[in-house]
Amino acid sequence: MATPNPTNIFRILVASDVHLGFMENDPIRGNDSFVTFKEILSIARKNDVDFILHGGDLFHDNKPSRHTLHACLSLLRQYCMGDRAINFEYLSDESADFKHCKFPTVNYKDPNLNISIPVFSIHGNHDDPTGQNNLCSLDLLHTAGLVNYFGKSLPLDKIQISPLLLQKGDTRLALYGLGSIRDERLHRMFVNKNVSMLRPKEGQNSWFNMFVLHQNRSKHSATNYIPEQFLEDFLDLVIWGHEHECRLQYENSHVEYNPTQELYICQPGSSIATSLSEGEMVPKHVGLLEISGKEFRMKAIPLQTVRQLYMDTVTLADHIDPAAPKAKQKSEEFCIKKVQEMIAKAEKEHTGNRDQPSLPLIRLKVDYTGFEPFTSQRFGQKFLETVANPKTLILFQRQKSCKAE
Amino acid sequence: MATPNPTNIFRILVASDVHLGFMENDPIRGNDSFVTFKEILSIARKNDVDFILHGGDLFHDNKPSRHTLHACLSLLRQYCMGDRAINFEYLSDESADFKHCKFPTVNYKDPNLNISIPVFSIHGNHDDPTGQNNLCSLDLLHTAGLVNYFGKSLPLDKIQISPLLLQKGDTRLALYGLGSIRDERLHRMFVNKNVSMLRPKEGQNSWFNMFVLHQNRSKHSATNYIPEQFLEDFLDLVIWGHEHECRLQYENSHVEYNPTQELYICQPGSSIATSLSEGEMVPKHVGLLEISGKEFRMKAIPLQTVRQLYMDTVTLADHIDPAAPKAKQKSEEFCIKKVQEMIAKAEKEHTGNRDQPSLPLIRLKVDYTGFEPFTSQRFGQKFLETVANPKTLILFQRQKSCKAE
Ligand SMILES: [Mn+2]
Ligand SMILES: [Mn+2]
Ligand SMILES: [Mn+2]
Ligand SMILES: [Mn+2]
Repeated sequence: MATPNPTNIFRILVASDVHLGFMENDPIRGNDSFVTFKEILSIARKNDVDFILHGGDLFHDNKPSRHTLHACLSLLRQYCMGDRAINFEYLSDESADFKHCKFPTVNYKDPNLNISIPVFSIHGNHDDPTGQNNLCSLDLLHTAGLVNYFGKSLPLDKIQISPLLLQKGDTRLALYGLGSIRDERLHRMFVNKNVSMLRPKEGQNSWFNMFVLHQNRSKHSATNYIPEQFLEDFLDLVIWGHEHECRLQYENSHVEYNPTQELYICQPGSSIATSLSEGEMVPKHVGLLEISGKEFRMKAIPLQTVRQLYMDTVTLADHIDPAAPKAKQKSEEFCIKKVQEMIAKAEKEHTGNRDQPSLPLIRLKVDYTGFEPFTSQRFGQKFLETVANPKTLILFQRQKSCKAE
Repeated sequence: MATPNPTNIFRILVASDVHLGFMENDPIRGNDSFVTFKEILSIARKNDVDFILHGGDLFHDNKPSRHTLHACLSLLRQYCMGDRAINFEYLSDESADFKHCKFPTVNYKDPNLNISIPVFSIHGNHDDPTGQNNLCSLDLLHTAGLVNYFGKSLPLDKIQISPLLLQKGDTRLALYGLGSIRDERLHRMFVNKNVSMLRPKEGQNSWFNMFVLHQNRSKHSATNYIPEQFLEDFLDLVIWGHEHECRLQYENSHVEYNPTQELYICQPGSSIATSLSEGEMVPKHVGLLEISGKEFRMKAIPLQTVRQLYMDTVTLADHIDPAAPKAKQKSEEFCIKKVQEMIAKAEKEHTGNRDQPSLPLIRLKVDYTGFEPFTSQRFGQKFLETVANPKTLILFQRQKSCKAE
């Protein structure tokens, strides 16, 4: 157990992009998302947090399998129900805040449910509302009483976001949420001044204003992201979901600061690598956020159960003469050695947590300009017992595409 | 509210084959299954029952849509959670009785859940366990704490059914359950004496022994059903799911008696017509079962929200001379009149319950031997506003197939 949870300080476990069910049918990696979700819930419990805030993409698939849904219900019931007292008040109108839900209430106030850790979540683009009645998987969890699903907006041309108002001792938290909306559309709505954030009427300056959203933060195209300058000045902290790179330890600080906007932005990143990319290589953390009055601090807690991911790029011509005898064989031997080194590194850097999988994800990008590529499938089979992704272990590329990512 | 629930008498709401989600995408009939499930739950509440016993096929589809699952969670939370005290004891070992479940407990004893009406259900052939981890939809409901899913057997060659042991005052109830198994397979297991029912060790003769199963009762082929004589002699009452014909008012008695077996068999039938057949036309009821010591009585409670179903058969040649002028037109006019009569009958017999749909299901079977059939699709379009099933309203058949069902 960490230090006791003081009566004036909101302590919040911040996580995002848990992607439950990712590759659930893979015999090696199928369990990864659940293992780390369990770790996150147990971190929340150990740190005696007031609640968990999740930034969207709780599920990887819009229609999660029965297995995934069952595993999720099961973990939430196991970790979030129980006798722990909830020590913060709910000041705003539940029936308005959750008017999109069949049960427009916050779960910990329901006398029929004994909640130990409330979970608040917005939806992401992976688990957004669709189909009959515009429901999403979070609606199932909300109606089951295990999650508080907020930030759902109706598909209209204007969005008014009103905050959940929470109070703990003297600390007053206005929590704004906006579930994922197609970036182009939301971008246009911002440009047209059709997104507004309502402010609490009373003691407006006494609130700590936090906003959680799930959108592109990096600029994919002119309008296919949400520029930070679109965000309201009065916000004290933004929790940015969807971007999988964990930036909780960005430049040695735990929260990025945008000086133009005078805005703190926390990007928790995903808790599982859903692609073999540089961003996913950044060590995964969750945030332990403490808010006291208008002040906050964020502590990054490393996740110890995330499957390790190592990537490297080699240019064969830098090491082997393409004209030399047996150049192809030599190039293959060279790559084998490289992969073996990465596996050895993974072994050395394993957290020791028994729930961290032992087989790492390894990706070797090979610039084979001037060489004949060897069979990547056969190459992968040499590592069936030692890497988690033998089929995607090696990626051949030619010089021109071999730029820094 | 009915008479108070006495302290020595188990009062149980018996229902089966609710088929949630049946035709959920039909604009007219899509809501039917939910409306009647809600009625059943409200009957249970009104009658202050100790629990609800459901005989399988709670869901129509093995993988219910999100909408259906959400509607079910929602109704269960609305009707089965609350402050009503549970007045019976659970004597057997929950961890053994529910060992197939992630939470091997009965929901009303969980201190984190405030259950007002426990629901016990076996699975049917429509919602049986499949896929990864052999889960079914009832596992989701059980793990969400809203249903007690029992009677799951592992896919082995032998089945041992041990009862849930429940006690209320002096009345002791041994409740045996067996979720749906392929009839051929279960038939063979019975023949090979591989199905056994365990008896309580203590005071064996003091228990009321009830068995709920979900199998073919009528003989489809030599081995594709479960003959009543397979059932154990010691059973006091069998609740037979899967057969959709409601037999709660069979031959003026509420429970059928098999004199050879000295066995009472209650067939609640479905709460929604999933086919246009004679069996489904029998008025739908649920059973209010009272058990006191070794005695029981069953009261049939009519369901008032079930969409009305009327079927009739006409032989055109009995009414019109096929050789007469305009015979085809006359035959169509005759059928129109017949359907109108049935619609009028439905209007007259509507229960008046505002949740009972106003458009009836009508099926006219037409023996058109000697006649040229008219277009059934065009015929149906005349009744778009007055019947629920214009597309399946009329069924043409020739003499040879026109036998009694
Ligand atoms: Mn994501
Ligand atoms: Mn996303
Ligand atoms: Mn059925
Ligand atoms: Mn059935």
